[in-house]
Amino acid sequence: MSKQFDVVVIGGGPGGYIAAIRAAQLGFNTACIDEWKNAAGGPAPGGTCTNVGCIPSKALLQSSEHFEHANHHFADHGISTGKVSMDVAKMVARKDNVVKQNNDGILYLFKKNKVSFFHGRGSFVAAKDGLYEIKVAGAAEEVISAKHVIVATGSNARQLPGAAFDEENILSNDGALRIGAVPKKLGVIGSGVIGLEMGSVWRRLGAEVTVLEGMPAFLAAVDDGVAKEALKQFTKQGLKIELGVKIAEVKSGKKGVTVSYANAKGEAQELAVDKLIVSIGRVPNTIGLNVEAVGLALDERGAIVVDGDCKTNLPNVWAVGDVVRGPMLAHKAEEEGVAVAERIAGQHGHVNFNTIPWVIYTSPEIAWVGRTEQQLKADGVAYKAGQFPFLANGRARALGDTTGFVKILADAKSDEILGVHIIGPMASELISEAVMAMEFKASAEDIARICHAHPSLSESTKEAALAVDKRTLNF
Amino acid sequence: MSKQFDVVVIGGGPGGYIAAIRAAQLGFNTACIDEWKNAAGGPAPGGTCTNVGCIPSKALLQSSEHFEHANHHFADHGISTGKVSMDVAKMVARKDNVVKQNNDGILYLFKKNKVSFFHGRGSFVAAKDGLYEIKVAGAAEEVISAKHVIVATGSNARQLPGAAFDEENILSNDGALRIGAVPKKLGVIGSGVIGLEMGSVWRRLGAEVTVLEGMPAFLAAVDDGVAKEALKQFTKQGLKIELGVKIAEVKSGKKGVTVSYANAKGEAQELAVDKLIVSIGRVPNTIGLNVEAVGLALDERGAIVVDGDCKTNLPNVWAVGDVVRGPMLAHKAEEEGVAVAERIAGQHGHVNFNTIPWVIYTSPEIAWVGRTEQQLKADGVAYKAGQFPFLANGRARALGDTTGFVKILADAKSDEILGVHIIGPMASELISEAVMAMEFKASAEDIARICHAHPSLSESTKEAALAVDKRTLNF
Repeated sequence: MSKQFDVVVIGGGPGGYIAAIRAAQLGFNTACIDEWKNAAGGPAPGGTCTNVGCIPSKALLQSSEHFEHANHHFADHGISTGKVSMDVAKMVARKDNVVKQNNDGILYLFKKNKVSFFHGRGSFVAAKDGLYEIKVAGAAEEVISAKHVIVATGSNARQLPGAAFDEENILSNDGALRIGAVPKKLGVIGSGVIGLEMGSVWRRLGAEVTVLEGMPAFLAAVDDGVAKEALKQFTKQGLKIELGVKIAEVKSGKKGVTVSYANAKGEAQELAVDKLIVSIGRVPNTIGLNVEAVGLALDERGAIVVDGDCKTNLPNVWAVGDVVRGPMLAHKAEEEGVAVAERIAGQHGHVNFNTIPWVIYTSPEIAWVGRTEQQLKADGVAYKAGQFPFLANGRARALGDTTGFVKILADAKSDEILGVHIIGPMASELISEAVMAMEFKASAEDIARICHAHPSLSESTKEAALAVDKRTLNF
Repeated sequence: MSKQFDVVVIGGGPGGYIAAIRAAQLGFNTACIDEWKNAAGGPAPGGTCTNVGCIPSKALLQSSEHFEHANHHFADHGISTGKVSMDVAKMVARKDNVVKQNNDGILYLFKKNKVSFFHGRGSFVAAKDGLYEIKVAGAAEEVISAKHVIVATGSNARQLPGAAFDEENILSNDGALRIGAVPKKLGVIGSGVIGLEMGSVWRRLGAEVTVLEGMPAFLAAVDDGVAKEALKQFTKQGLKIELGVKIAEVKSGKKGVTVSYANAKGEAQELAVDKLIVSIGRVPNTIGLNVEAVGLALDERGAIVVDGDCKTNLPNVWAVGDVVRGPMLAHKAEEEGVAVAERIAGQHGHVNFNTIPWVIYTSPEIAWVGRTEQQLKADGVAYKAGQFPFLANGRARALGDTTGFVKILADAKSDEILGVHIIGPMASELISEAVMAMEFKASAEDIARICHAHPSLSESTKEAALAVDKRTLNF
């Protein structure tokens, strides 16, 4: 007889492992199936985020930022060094170790919370007697069954037609994280989060980086003002960014990769690089899930169809994270995972899609929550805007990083905050205050009246709120 | 005839300059008097905070942190350098430049907001016909008059009896910020904020630092758990900290300073150092203010007596910041300055003393808001505590700084957050979310249910909130 569980989670990324832990906490006999392998073939739960996404990219960003600081900013502080050099293998090994800490952490959490872990690919076999049979194909093969199934199989990098990832020359996020030596010339197709973060890492380490973006606008999802500042800063740092291009052909050979494309004017161009990162979005991953066996419905993009509560078309089958609609963000997946576990327990889990923060971990960092100025215009909402530059912030001056600003958008009548957009030092952490404020439906006036520690970067958020009412104190 | 103003502010520190700007914004004809001089004798508004406090200390902390990183952490990242050395004069010059940017910024803000600036010492002359006459003693001497006076004269470092500051051997915060070369041995009397921050700077640069503290407990105002962790970390870094000492005598000579003291066991000890920083608190500054001329009341500590609204015993005379009761924090002074300007305008300015954050900018940083665990015990409040270590936070791992934790204290019954205590990376910025939450009387459950960006240090705040209910997801 197969092992039977109350809840089986397929996929051990942020959505899946969190859902499994929460379900177990709520008293369900829970299993989590994940196929990710580390170099030794052992389990490496955590999904794209932990293995080839958020976590390793932040490790490389940190290492390369230290390198950049040593080379370009130490002199300002009176610090001299001899020649600064980067041992790329060591940097990558440190990154691998950070990833391993996170993998091991999740395995420990499974044990602590009594989640049964299965290492292998999970797929539907059949629905029978109110139970779902799930096959685990790992070192061995076995079938387990569950009353409730949570699918959290994530997403895969989108390939460019005619330019399949070989992870040697043509790289997805995966290959981009384990380039063995600094390429002389690096091409990036797609100026999304991954392209910009990885482009930044290798640019800092000495690569000549060219980013080709098909859209006419840079970072179209980001507030216009922030995107403009970002383009200015990245260009100043030496990233070559071409917008409105049309890729014609990608040829990969022994000597590297050649990209033929038309520039914004329609002129034929050629870019020869040693490595090419393709980051043109991600597609929901249901490969090998065998949805047909149970009749689980997918949409035309290949995503599992769910309602606002993450319910699929099948009773007791749920899906969360990148494999469903909505932003492909680890913390969105986690929130959905928690909410689904609680719904299974008869509770009323809720995810507020309006207050999910976004972060790009470049330097300057970019973070936002809520609507952009162009969205408010499109929605016909009357709003007020307030902005404060880090240039006028004492802590930013002391840090030696005064790039960027905080921008707050508030309803013209009620003063309720509709969006907060930050580009600058520690934007990734400063955004948490803004999310908290928006969850409480704070007005700009509220932030403006709340005491902020001096000197801190967060004072810029207060000042931006004051700017909404045209009464900044320090600008 | 003397120049007449609606509002005259005496003192151009954070409390004073902000009060002046806000008063001018509200339509008052406003002047601000400040006597601080830069090296060239020109005006240097901003008070202790800008000139010899918050701002320059953060500049030195940043420079010395880069130095520390290069020496001790770069190897982890694969970065190698030649010999790393610090040009102290250059580091101090950078700090001076950061200070100057802030001084100049305030002068620009005065111009922009049409605040008349007077460079010199302000003192009361007389009260006459509903006006106060104020003398400005600067390069020249003049008398101005005002209907409303806001006193914001700040505080001075407390001297140790028999060991006056000479700023050469025996240093206040002022001298501690402009030591010309790394002392071989540095003594610090008092383990308060300034002592620990300055001790950290010079320890990082190579000084052997001994801190002598009179209290039997380390950082008695800080949450016990945080103080314990801090003591552990500072000791590990090489700060020698002796608690419960009794200073007997301080002798300063050509060869440095000798401190005779009894240790906690009562044994006579001697500490010989090259420089001695004394940071045993600060006293309200009313030197030369000539309070007698108008009968402005001081308390037994020398602070100007005010009520909860910063009203003194005299009609239309207000006082804010370090010169009155309450914590000596720049941002507390600022809030009082804004509130007083608004009260003069007939508005209802309010300062919530329960949500004023505290920060110590050591490494690890320490920040908190609300009550400590020992205060709750003393107050007889039933509470729940939740704690999450940065060791289990993905971003902290990627940064390579996993020291410390976030601790949340919530009411046992209502779950309302009563205190948030952070020791670890970027605590100074993470605290802003906690302040926002407490201003909205958030429960721990609220923070636990709010989406936090992944990976970010702020996820630790969410997890600490989950820990209050014993349901952490990542620990």
